[in-house]
Amino acid sequence: MSDKKQKLREISELGEFGLIDHITKDIKINHKNTIKGVGDDAAVIEYGEICAIITTDLLVEGIHFNLIYTPLKHLGYKAVIVNLSDIYAMNATPKQITVSLAISKKFAVEHIEQIYEGINLACEQYNVDLIGGDTSSSLTGLAISITAIGEARKEEITYRNTAKKNDVVCVTGNLGSAYMGLQLLEREKEIFKTDPGFNPSLAGYDYILQRQLKPEARKDVIEILKELNVKPTSMIDISDGLSSEIFHICNKSDVGCKIFQDKIPIDLNTEKMAEEFNIDPLTAALNGGEDYELLFTIDINDLEKIKDQSMIHPIGHITDQKHGAVLITNGGQSIALQAQGWNQMKE
Amino acid sequence: MSDKKQKLREISELGEFGLIDHITKDIKINHKNTIKGVGDDAAVIEYGEICAIITTDLLVEGIHFNLIYTPLKHLGYKAVIVNLSDIYAMNATPKQITVSLAISKKFAVEHIEQIYEGINLACEQYNVDLIGGDTSSSLTGLAISITAIGEARKEEITYRNTAKKNDVVCVTGNLGSAYMGLQLLEREKEIFKTDPGFNPSLAGYDYILQRQLKPEARKDVIEILKELNVKPTSMIDISDGLSSEIFHICNKSDVGCKIFQDKIPIDLNTEKMAEEFNIDPLTAALNGGEDYELLFTIDINDLEKIKDQSMIHPIGHITDQKHGAVLITNGGQSIALQAQGWNQMKE
Repeated sequence: MSDKKQKLREISELGEFGLIDHITKDIKINHKNTIKGVGDDAAVIEYGEICAIITTDLLVEGIHFNLIYTPLKHLGYKAVIVNLSDIYAMNATPKQITVSLAISKKFAVEHIEQIYEGINLACEQYNVDLIGGDTSSSLTGLAISITAIGEARKEEITYRNTAKKNDVVCVTGNLGSAYMGLQLLEREKEIFKTDPGFNPSLAGYDYILQRQLKPEARKDVIEILKELNVKPTSMIDISDGLSSEIFHICNKSDVGCKIFQDKIPIDLNTEKMAEEFNIDPLTAALNGGEDYELLFTIDINDLEKIKDQSMIHPIGHITDQKHGAVLITNGGQSIALQAQGWNQMKE
Repeated sequence: MSDKKQKLREISELGEFGLIDHITKDIKINHKNTIKGVGDDAAVIEYGEICAIITTDLLVEGIHFNLIYTPLKHLGYKAVIVNLSDIYAMNATPKQITVSLAISKKFAVEHIEQIYEGINLACEQYNVDLIGGDTSSSLTGLAISITAIGEARKEEITYRNTAKKNDVVCVTGNLGSAYMGLQLLEREKEIFKTDPGFNPSLAGYDYILQRQLKPEARKDVIEILKELNVKPTSMIDISDGLSSEIFHICNKSDVGCKIFQDKIPIDLNTEKMAEEFNIDPLTAALNGGEDYELLFTIDINDLEKIKDQSMIHPIGHITDQKHGAVLITNGGQSIALQAQGWNQMKE
């Protein structure tokens, strides 16, 4: 790290997406079978009739999880889920994962066993093989790096950059609950810090806590869309909040969109918690993140096919690029949607 | 991390290999196309006529590298190489990689650029596509997690567990040089600590420094073996030292081996440095690690085919399991070889 005296740019100046754009802007692809590289939920490699879909996520203690309130088993489970969600977002089926751990001395064999209990449970639930990995020590804390490998036929794969005008924008499940679960856990942690004898009051909040601590990936949605013979025209998973993800689809597809506030699915538990925290539930849904729901667009002619699916919610439609990505509020206002990404560097 | 009052086992009790065996002992493989899971240099997934070969490595600051003497560009290069080496050890060709970084606030955009310069250079040299990854912040230090994806036809792939009696044991290049490079860097670091005005005396040590800081993977060997029509009966890359790696081959193949000290290739620069440090060069070769050479066995009938290859050294042969894995010293003594693995947890 010998830098002479040049002025260095802080990473926070670029932000996550800016940094990724910056370091990947000159990437060349040389192999014909690399059919998708950087820039989607996962990469795609073609092997004859089958494509392998590859995604990887790195979870770092103190950034992505706090062990004060995260059970290690749940952490292992969630670390797998966030990767599987990326595979499903390509309309593919996850089949294998690798798991790498960096572990500091504060962890005992029993802790690692708990993490792997969660990893193995997720593998079982989603029918995924654990095929390898790496185990290392670290000077401080825990890091988990998982790579998931999925399969799909080439024509089945959905990308972010293929939404087209008049497509219907759909979202699965409900949004903002994982964020409200996090707020609750953070509040109880602060109280616990000042009063270690305190018993956290988490009863009755099971739903939002489960959404934060032990989320699921939308295997069911992918299977139902196949049954209904609906191939989304574009798809992405919701890890950074609806606002970011719809922005990515619009940006990559050179289109705009119109989303309606009253169509955005928000669970009653989320609303209740948001009220307690004096947070607008819409903010949690738009910017909260970690919902691991799917956001996708379908051809308007497919709308009829999904109308009986209670887990799929049409929330708007794709427009011309010149109109931008906008949210129409219940009061009729039009608000521009933006990508948030992480801003951990700014904290 | 609520552990009640139970007695916890320290990870150092098990060591790296013990921990990996422990956490992977109950793993089930459900997919027919997962033809190799945990337990080799890389995993193997079959897609029709082609197999994808997958390996992953996690490098952690303060454990695997020290930024006091590691240029970031070299670090990026080496992080790719250690993964490619695992792919070559399966007799496969690396084609793609994903790169995940966790970065603390001490790093600026320019530092990340330097890491990617090294990554991109390695991709160029080895004809590999960078297809994805993840970027995250970290509370302390840098971590790099790379997954490499290679290709091979099923019948070309070499494993660790297929060596057979009377096979010839071969090693490429030379051993122990990366370890001596590390010793030199560590010595200069200590002097620098006590005298910051001090100029490190690294001149004339280029070879061992390059072996430590900017190693290469044995693409050339894999290509030559194909040209010579020699398929190794087993293969592994040398990341933990010859002793560990030959032990793995013997252990997984249910065989023993006899290695001869006078056949083990050690470079003159390594010997010179070892003498300066009062280290037996044989110790560096057996236990030093990070050489990224290949260790393989060939059928005795193929010995003639490789005899003109200066980069390939026959160093012994495979025996019955009951004889164990032994080194025959120049003095005629027989010494049992053992797996070392990391002992970072014990430090």
